[in-house]
Amino acid sequence: MTSLDDLPLRANLRGQIPYGAPQLHVPVALNVNENTHPIPPAVAADIAQALAAAILTVNRYPDREFTQLRDDLAGYLGHGLTRDNIWAANGSNEVLQQVLQAFGGPGRSLLGFAPTYSMYSILASGTDTRWIAGGRDADYELSPETAARWVRETSPDIVFLCSPNNPTGTPLSLATIEAVYDATDGIVVVDEAYAEFAPAGTESALSLLPGRERLLVSRTMSKAFAFAGVRLGYLAADPAVTDALRLVRLPYHLSALTQAAAVAALAHTGEMLAMVDDIRVQRDRLVAELSALGFNPLRSGSNFVLFGGVTDPHATFEALLAEGILIRDVGIPGHLRVSAGTEAETSAFLAAIARLRPAAE
Amino acid sequence: MTSLDDLPLRANLRGQIPYGAPQLHVPVALNVNENTHPIPPAVAADIAQALAAAILTVNRYPDREFTQLRDDLAGYLGHGLTRDNIWAANGSNEVLQQVLQAFGGPGRSLLGFAPTYSMYSILASGTDTRWIAGGRDADYELSPETAARWVRETSPDIVFLCSPNNPTGTPLSLATIEAVYDATDGIVVVDEAYAEFAPAGTESALSLLPGRERLLVSRTMSKAFAFAGVRLGYLAADPAVTDALRLVRLPYHLSALTQAAAVAALAHTGEMLAMVDDIRVQRDRLVAELSALGFNPLRSGSNFVLFGGVTDPHATFEALLAEGILIRDVGIPGHLRVSAGTEAETSAFLAAIARLRPAAE
Repeated sequence: MTSLDDLPLRANLRGQIPYGAPQLHVPVALNVNENTHPIPPAVAADIAQALAAAILTVNRYPDREFTQLRDDLAGYLGHGLTRDNIWAANGSNEVLQQVLQAFGGPGRSLLGFAPTYSMYSILASGTDTRWIAGGRDADYELSPETAARWVRETSPDIVFLCSPNNPTGTPLSLATIEAVYDATDGIVVVDEAYAEFAPAGTESALSLLPGRERLLVSRTMSKAFAFAGVRLGYLAADPAVTDALRLVRLPYHLSALTQAAAVAALAHTGEMLAMVDDIRVQRDRLVAELSALGFNPLRSGSNFVLFGGVTDPHATFEALLAEGILIRDVGIPGHLRVSAGTEAETSAFLAAIARLRPAAE
Repeated sequence: MTSLDDLPLRANLRGQIPYGAPQLHVPVALNVNENTHPIPPAVAADIAQALAAAILTVNRYPDREFTQLRDDLAGYLGHGLTRDNIWAANGSNEVLQQVLQAFGGPGRSLLGFAPTYSMYSILASGTDTRWIAGGRDADYELSPETAARWVRETSPDIVFLCSPNNPTGTPLSLATIEAVYDATDGIVVVDEAYAEFAPAGTESALSLLPGRERLLVSRTMSKAFAFAGVRLGYLAADPAVTDALRLVRLPYHLSALTQAAAVAALAHTGEMLAMVDDIRVQRDRLVAELSALGFNPLRSGSNFVLFGGVTDPHATFEALLAEGILIRDVGIPGHLRVSAGTEAETSAFLAAIARLRPAAE
């Protein structure tokens, strides 16, 4: 039988394993920060109708410029943005990969602040961009001073700032973003995948875009819009940035179905975002109750909570799994990560970990 | 206003323009080798139903392994293939990009036989793989001897064979594929995007897979299945090859909608492929009638025809466009390319070019 070693694989892929959490089917899945609320039935019906119309024309290539979708995403983001500021792809992973294809590559480097979203270093490797793992302050916070110092000392071509940060959940201040931008001549990406879950009144990095042509703010419909299965990531930036991404995107990369589904969902922004408030409540509840149980949850601006004080994360993970509750061991010693689910799912997790605590501690 | 030159774009992208044919809306669009037949209404209804069901669970990530789809693609291809032999992505462009990410890259090279599908060199550039443009024999044919000589003389890491070739339409013999495979230790991809349009009885490169672990045969649902808008490309190869592609794919790269639509369409293979016979008839008619008009059409195993003997391709292209008929100037002197449309579309094109002939010649 042929194995990977028999094939002329690239040197930097040898010995690697594919990225991805286990795909287990369990009653309570709180492991990959999904929105566990299904799309409201009335909205789903509207989206289905849009898809039924789209399928009638899929013998033709889709709109390569996804014009309607860019209009609608600009409208959703506000901040005076127009379609010329918007780019989209199949998930924000693809958006970020395109950014690296345009601005990274051999001889160039990408700085991120570990621990952070684990795809960043994988995307760097996949585009032959050198990955630089910067550090963080206590409790995984990132001050303007610390961030700017890393930028000055490593001179990266690109900086990825995850705001709020995954897997720690910790928010990022606009001051840190400004400090990073001012410290580099390179591209600065603020990954706001979870921005909609921030406390009310939190200012988005979108407010920093005017006058900063090297600043890119990426978003996704996976989380707040409960659209993980549709794969729609996007970003807002200077129109010159979107022109750069046109040079590296594969033609017709966004299917007619993806475009139709996203446009239909954006017409129901109010109903879709109503779920966000429920999730925020459960997130705050996780922080409060985990703390009361003696764990050390980090502050979170996201739909998940990283909590420390776990003596044996692997054992706790397995014990929860045995009860049908799947969370995530992200490899940070003494910590586990849990997504905020529905009220019932969150209650199930909290009850289980309360029971397990004596055994786990 | 910021321009591309103000951004730290990669050196090999400077001065480039995005790939893509003009997106013009005309009555008769025969420029990008689409299947101009819409999906049969009963099939479209079934696909719409599958999409309506899929939308109810898109708050969760899709099956990262697209298991059902791989099963069904293997069943469609036959040749004893199973899901372990199958890979898929958002269009065959993405499949081919993943092949280059796994087996190409800096210090590696890709050989193709020009003129051929213009995305090959773009994909090479995008993955920092060196592009080698090999040549062809008279009438854009590719003999085993010519192909193997190019392989021996250039020692590429990867060879792309387009079968039938785009934009020339010329078929490729299995003997040429075998000769190329035997002449290299590298990866050999046979791009069979248009394979279903080959004359009845034509053997696919799939028949060469057993015992050839470096041979990859790529396909697409864009053409024969009238699914260009859905973006579903795939390939068949040794299971070790699909394991290699798992190392470079973005997680969850195939949306739940794409998977559902493709699975539903594959359940109607008979009805979908019935359109292929009609298109073959129009393709053969194009070759016969263009020849009778004094042009020099190449032999075609595809859903399009490249024809020579055009004195001024640009003028002919524009004159046809003025009549609402869009075809493609692929940059080969004295030639134009036209897709086989419905009977009415093909008739409209033939009538127009017959009228234009005196002016164009």
